[in-house]
Amino acid sequence: MTKPYYGQLEEEKVFKDPVHRYIHVRDELIWALIGTKEFQRLRRVRQLGTTYMTFHGAEHTRFNHSLGVYEITKRILDVFHGRPHWNEHERLLTLSAALLHDVGHGPFSHSFEKVFDTDHEEWTRQIILGDTEVNEVLTNVSPDFPQAVADVIEKTYSNKLVTSIISSQIDADRMDYLQRDAYYTGVSYGHFDMERILRVMRPMEDQVAIKQSGMHAVEDYIMSRYQMYWQVYFHPVTRSGEVILSKIFMRAKELYEQGYEFKHKPHHFYSFFDGKGSLDDYLRLDEAITLYYFQIWQEEEDRILRDLCVRFCNRKLFKYVEFNPNLRMNDWPLLQDLFRQADLNPDYYLVVDSSSDLPYDFYRPGEEEERLPIHLIMPNGKLRELSRESDVVEAISGKKRTDHKLYFPLDYLEDEREHKEVKKKIRDLLNV
Amino acid sequence: MTKPYYGQLEEEKVFKDPVHRYIHVRDELIWALIGTKEFQRLRRVRQLGTTYMTFHGAEHTRFNHSLGVYEITKRILDVFHGRPHWNEHERLLTLSAALLHDVGHGPFSHSFEKVFDTDHEEWTRQIILGDTEVNEVLTNVSPDFPQAVADVIEKTYSNKLVTSIISSQIDADRMDYLQRDAYYTGVSYGHFDMERILRVMRPMEDQVAIKQSGMHAVEDYIMSRYQMYWQVYFHPVTRSGEVILSKIFMRAKELYEQGYEFKHKPHHFYSFFDGKGSLDDYLRLDEAITLYYFQIWQEEEDRILRDLCVRFCNRKLFKYVEFNPNLRMNDWPLLQDLFRQADLNPDYYLVVDSSSDLPYDFYRPGEEEERLPIHLIMPNGKLRELSRESDVVEAISGKKRTDHKLYFPLDYLEDEREHKEVKKKIRDLLNV
Amino acid sequence: MTKPYYGQLEEEKVFKDPVHRYIHVRDELIWALIGTKEFQRLRRVRQLGTTYMTFHGAEHTRFNHSLGVYEITKRILDVFHGRPHWNEHERLLTLSAALLHDVGHGPFSHSFEKVFDTDHEEWTRQIILGDTEVNEVLTNVSPDFPQAVADVIEKTYSNKLVTSIISSQIDADRMDYLQRDAYYTGVSYGHFDMERILRVMRPMEDQVAIKQSGMHAVEDYIMSRYQMYWQVYFHPVTRSGEVILSKIFMRAKELYEQGYEFKHKPHHFYSFFDGKGSLDDYLRLDEAITLYYFQIWQEEEDRILRDLCVRFCNRKLFKYVEFNPNLRMNDWPLLQDLFRQADLNPDYYLVVDSSSDLPYDFYRPGEEEERLPIHLIMPNGKLRELSRESDVVEAISGKKRTDHKLYFPLDYLEDEREHKEVKKKIRDLLNV
Amino acid sequence: MTKPYYGQLEEEKVFKDPVHRYIHVRDELIWALIGTKEFQRLRRVRQLGTTYMTFHGAEHTRFNHSLGVYEITKRILDVFHGRPHWNEHERLLTLSAALLHDVGHGPFSHSFEKVFDTDHEEWTRQIILGDTEVNEVLTNVSPDFPQAVADVIEKTYSNKLVTSIISSQIDADRMDYLQRDAYYTGVSYGHFDMERILRVMRPMEDQVAIKQSGMHAVEDYIMSRYQMYWQVYFHPVTRSGEVILSKIFMRAKELYEQGYEFKHKPHHFYSFFDGKGSLDDYLRLDEAITLYYFQIWQEEEDRILRDLCVRFCNRKLFKYVEFNPNLRMNDWPLLQDLFRQADLNPDYYLVVDSSSDLPYDFYRPGEEEERLPIHLIMPNGKLRELSRESDVVEAISGKKRTDHKLYFPLDYLEDEREHKEVKKKIRDLLNV
Repeated sequence: MTKPYYGQLEEEKVFKDPVHRYIHVRDELIWALIGTKEFQRLRRVRQLGTTYMTFHGAEHTRFNHSLGVYEITKRILDVFHGRPHWNEHERLLTLSAALLHDVGHGPFSHSFEKVFDTDHEEWTRQIILGDTEVNEVLTNVSPDFPQAVADVIEKTYSNKLVTSIISSQIDADRMDYLQRDAYYTGVSYGHFDMERILRVMRPMEDQVAIKQSGMHAVEDYIMSRYQMYWQVYFHPVTRSGEVILSKIFMRAKELYEQGYEFKHKPHHFYSFFDGKGSLDDYLRLDEAITLYYFQIWQEEEDRILRDLCVRFCNRKLFKYVEFNPNLRMNDWPLLQDLFRQADLNPDYYLVVDSSSDLPYDFYRPGEEEERLPIHLIMPNGKLRELSRESDVVEAISGKKRTDHKLYFPLDYLEDEREHKEVKKKIRDLLNV
Repeated sequence: MTKPYYGQLEEEKVFKDPVHRYIHVRDELIWALIGTKEFQRLRRVRQLGTTYMTFHGAEHTRFNHSLGVYEITKRILDVFHGRPHWNEHERLLTLSAALLHDVGHGPFSHSFEKVFDTDHEEWTRQIILGDTEVNEVLTNVSPDFPQAVADVIEKTYSNKLVTSIISSQIDADRMDYLQRDAYYTGVSYGHFDMERILRVMRPMEDQVAIKQSGMHAVEDYIMSRYQMYWQVYFHPVTRSGEVILSKIFMRAKELYEQGYEFKHKPHHFYSFFDGKGSLDDYLRLDEAITLYYFQIWQEEEDRILRDLCVRFCNRKLFKYVEFNPNLRMNDWPLLQDLFRQADLNPDYYLVVDSSSDLPYDFYRPGEEEERLPIHLIMPNGKLRELSRESDVVEAISGKKRTDHKLYFPLDYLEDEREHKEVKKKIRDLLNV
Repeated sequence: MTKPYYGQLEEEKVFKDPVHRYIHVRDELIWALIGTKEFQRLRRVRQLGTTYMTFHGAEHTRFNHSLGVYEITKRILDVFHGRPHWNEHERLLTLSAALLHDVGHGPFSHSFEKVFDTDHEEWTRQIILGDTEVNEVLTNVSPDFPQAVADVIEKTYSNKLVTSIISSQIDADRMDYLQRDAYYTGVSYGHFDMERILRVMRPMEDQVAIKQSGMHAVEDYIMSRYQMYWQVYFHPVTRSGEVILSKIFMRAKELYEQGYEFKHKPHHFYSFFDGKGSLDDYLRLDEAITLYYFQIWQEEEDRILRDLCVRFCNRKLFKYVEFNPNLRMNDWPLLQDLFRQADLNPDYYLVVDSSSDLPYDFYRPGEEEERLPIHLIMPNGKLRELSRESDVVEAISGKKRTDHKLYFPLDYLEDEREHKEVKKKIRDLLNV
Repeated sequence: MTKPYYGQLEEEKVFKDPVHRYIHVRDELIWALIGTKEFQRLRRVRQLGTTYMTFHGAEHTRFNHSLGVYEITKRILDVFHGRPHWNEHERLLTLSAALLHDVGHGPFSHSFEKVFDTDHEEWTRQIILGDTEVNEVLTNVSPDFPQAVADVIEKTYSNKLVTSIISSQIDADRMDYLQRDAYYTGVSYGHFDMERILRVMRPMEDQVAIKQSGMHAVEDYIMSRYQMYWQVYFHPVTRSGEVILSKIFMRAKELYEQGYEFKHKPHHFYSFFDGKGSLDDYLRLDEAITLYYFQIWQEEEDRILRDLCVRFCNRKLFKYVEFNPNLRMNDWPLLQDLFRQADLNPDYYLVVDSSSDLPYDFYRPGEEEERLPIHLIMPNGKLRELSRESDVVEAISGKKRTDHKLYFPLDYLEDEREHKEVKKKIRDLLNV
């Protein structure tokens, strides 16, 4: 019988973490994963994209968050240790999946994926299964271990209990990001009694459930989530940064397709412009690389690319008004036309952004994107769906809320040296 | 009589700040300065250089800190308002200097300045006085206003009270960074009762003094400073990152001087390699640009540059041992020789780093780098130097402490495929 | 023209407060009020009655809370200073009312008032208007000042804006107690961004309103309130302590009325047993006095009084089950009868306690206990009732929730040395 | 073989604690001890005596603190579990000693013990060994268990490692009270990284030692202790309350000895006046009982007793000046004489109080009150005394600091209706 490749570290490694105080690593496997270059790369990808333009504290990276999800998962497993339904053999699998669940994120993923039609979940899969240091480390556990980790992250793993720890409506991922993003932004939402929730989590056959005595802590968690979405994640200024960002990607791609001669050639993006970026190409990207191009493109010939990059780098963002395109179908073509008359390409300078959120949902079989509900374990041992016990959760359950905003360069529209008349018309129509 | 160019904002602007809860801007001048591209550039320069390699939370930028120093200064001035010695006309000057005191910092300043022999204080001066948006905004106040701001930051301004708010042994700068760096790293040092200190600060003829009743809060501040230096700022792992960083700059410069043909030409650094970087060149730099080169240099021909960049990007740092070069004068040439034998260039792979700190000092006239002591205002109205009242401060006052460490690539020295004998000798000598 | 009796303190007085960091007193009037013996007496009356039996940290007194309400009010007035609608002449009146709003509370008010049919609001009025140190201090301002303070507290004062600062659905009182009680109990509910709320409060003609931009902070406050009610204030164990407490008062009164000869005569309570307690009698009471009697009554002849006091002092509380008397009308007389058979007086040992709460309500004209709704100031300057803007508040608005519990001495019912059969029946009926 | 009397609780009991977040009880023994009436009595004895007169938040009781010491001890033992030197059989013994170490404290122990010449450590011993519920619970473990618990608390227990957990210069007791008292007073001192200290504590043969990597956390702890002593525990206003308190006890005793006829007879104190208070007498005392007498003595005939009680209950404290009796030996009899002339009994109205503290000490064999030093475990495994490694600790080590203050009723001395001349002389002499 052979000695397993990884064991316990001789001396536990400790990271000081502002959110969980300390992150403890005892397993050689986890230590090896953290040391891979693909994981270290997460230090160069911010957790919250352009949010730092609104909340200057939000400069933390996905490296931070990934360690946090690992730590919470570890604490959950400490509670599960020795309980029924929990299979201790899956400990390392669960921890690895927790650590790696976001490893496929790239620079400003949200906009990047939209413009280049890729998907960070697919990159995560490739990093785990492809020719990477991460894969090498995982394969040392056993040849089928990488696939198992990928399955857990993709929620196709056979043991649903394991996947529900990493992704469900109350999972280690969300519990970390709510607290972490609240910490770094400094907002007073995002706090809930995680210690309490961890203590009342119980492994069940195919999911994590919560002892009923912890219901109020869960309510608090759901309200935190609700507030964080509307106060932080969907903040209209952040979305303005995001709008400009995706328009930069779009413009660069369009110019490339038109055969435009870049002063500074964006080699890093070529394969993505062509829609055939490889894993190696992708791993070479990060936010430093991206910002490098944005910086130098401030000196490009193309007026639109140049302007958008100046706006992004110096935070000269678009302004916004409430604007529901469904309700103002007539105004829309009119606005586009006026923008063209004002010498503004509406494809880049007149942008509707819609955000919507569903703070909690019970099970709606058959519907697209089914969401597993949170279950309480009642004193009699039976499970009961959360919103049937909690008035507060019931009140917001299943209620999708959408916010539509129209973004545009107000500074340009207020500059009366040219197109004075048409700009006035636009401002009147937008009521700004 | 003409209306002054800047007045009060119609509606106060508020930034959410994790350290001071909120940062409030009421002056149009301050708002305009924050909006300049030179100030926004600080978003791309981290506050603590390579500290994020040790404390993953330390990803905050100088933008953060600069706003914090401004906010503390504003709160100090609120306390000073209407008191003797305080000249209200200098309010905007003090606030501007507080906001801009670090505006000349560049990417990884510490190493950058060492290798390229520049000085962020000189860049700050140029940004304030040169052809910049910052200068334009300041000049709108009055033609001599930029010079006054520069003078305050350089401590040559006539009113010493104003300069002491921004830089003395207990100033807005230190009070912000201790708390801020503690917050983002998550360490439990760095906390002191700033609210109390602010309330007991009093303007005196040529300095800020502290009411004696606040002495213990000041003691606590000085102990915080002491702990932050040794626990965070001089952390040996951070210094390992810093060592590699400066060696990368050094290597790139050396290669350039040797006429080496870079695969990816570092245009951004050329003028600095030549020792004649202009303000424009400097403002074009930031940490994204720098990391871009580090990333692509991982594929350079030159073995040393390539290796150092791989180490930096993937956090394969040098290890260290205690090593006081003054005490081991004989070992030093021996080690250098052995390194050469092991095919390691000692200029890049055998590095002594010494850090030293003086947590508080009383006045030592005539000595280099005189430091203004902290004065207490005694109940009888007389001033008394802090260390004469406080046992704790007296105990650490004027006591410089130095820490010497030797950095080297242990991984290479442990790879026994080549130079086995000599590597063994080195390891024995270093006792690793 | 005469100098006003009270001015500004030569040196501001500062209290260290764990919740608001510091409490600042600048007015001689406020300082004089704090020094009165009626106000100092609040140091001997706990803020949360028997809650300390559940949350051991909840040992703080009404003295604490009263200072806190004063401090929040002061901060509100700092925001109001110089704004339309706010009459600066009423500053001292508002601060005095804030400080004194709870001065009439006695030992364990809730139970005391129920049994002795008194009302702390009436005592507050008497303390302010009667022959007390508080009245003397207030009268020094002007002869009609005490009446004005009493009017504000009783909400009959002509300026409704002033009364709404002290008592409305979002007032200084609630903002203090939610945070303070959360701090001392240690629960993670009760936090909201008060600094933000204070900054968006605006004086209006007859109420305080909130700028719409602060809506989410108010939502958070209302959710905090909801959680604190159900997690802390209505905690079933606290209510068990309260049940025993009121039964002690009831028993002592009944014994007195029956002419029972107390070993230790409760002189302090005689006038209240007779229903004619004077203000002097009332001010002589506090929780130390009350606990003194509870202690010595542990040695009384009367079995019930003795047992209840032993239970209270040594925390041998009653257990509880869910029990809605409206739904179990038949069980009720049966249980009473069985208790009598088991030699337990049901008047003392079988107690239903019902708690109910309305977390927020909009205006329902004509209904008993009208509650003034919270109004938002919309960007267009119009007022809009909170629940019409906030989904979350709308969801819980006007929804009264009631919890019924039945309390009884389970230890006695489980002691099978006597009345074995009947006790078994009771336990079966109660399902314990 | 018999089943041990106590096992594990079926369901863990949890207390919400503001300082340690949660206090967990898994052992039936601990649960039983908490439920005893002697332990519950600690709810009626404040942790910090008269400190609440200075810091209004300091209303917490010894019940709070005792649970906290238990919890920290439990966490220490979790770290020790399975390590060399640690004998798991002594777990329950250590936990019991931690919980009970202060059980002998009575009302305002400091003054009570001084006047009545008793000692809370002796009462602790009697509660553990005498006829009490505590003793009954402990005896159920084994007949010699109570004696072992008493031995640990008295530091005579054979296993020095166990005693050092509960009492040494860095023990569970101090770690709890520093944090707890800081929390309730609200001061910003008292914080240190306990989680870190707990993780670096190691059981050694006859003491707890600290891994050298945790030295800075220990420095921080020692500085916290230093600040708490001088900022909180020795606060001159608190000591004024304490002075009056002990003078009340002294006066009551003196009156009793003189055969004075009390209006309200202090039965509870009779046996202590006679110097023969029994354990039962002692357990009947608490702060409610004490305050009851102080309240009613406000109406006593004796002018001194009455005045002191009015002062205590209404916080009309003595004022103070710096006064070192050793340096002003001539002034002392003069002052006493002047006080007598002013009709003030100097035994009660002219009081010197001296406080002194030794923040940390190394081992001074042979000296009275030897204190075990804190030892670091160096990387080579050897032990080294803390002050030899730490500059900061070395600086304050062994330095006793003493503060002398003279207390007197300034209000009376300023009342010029009588003894005008002599009062003027006194004020001049005291420079007030």
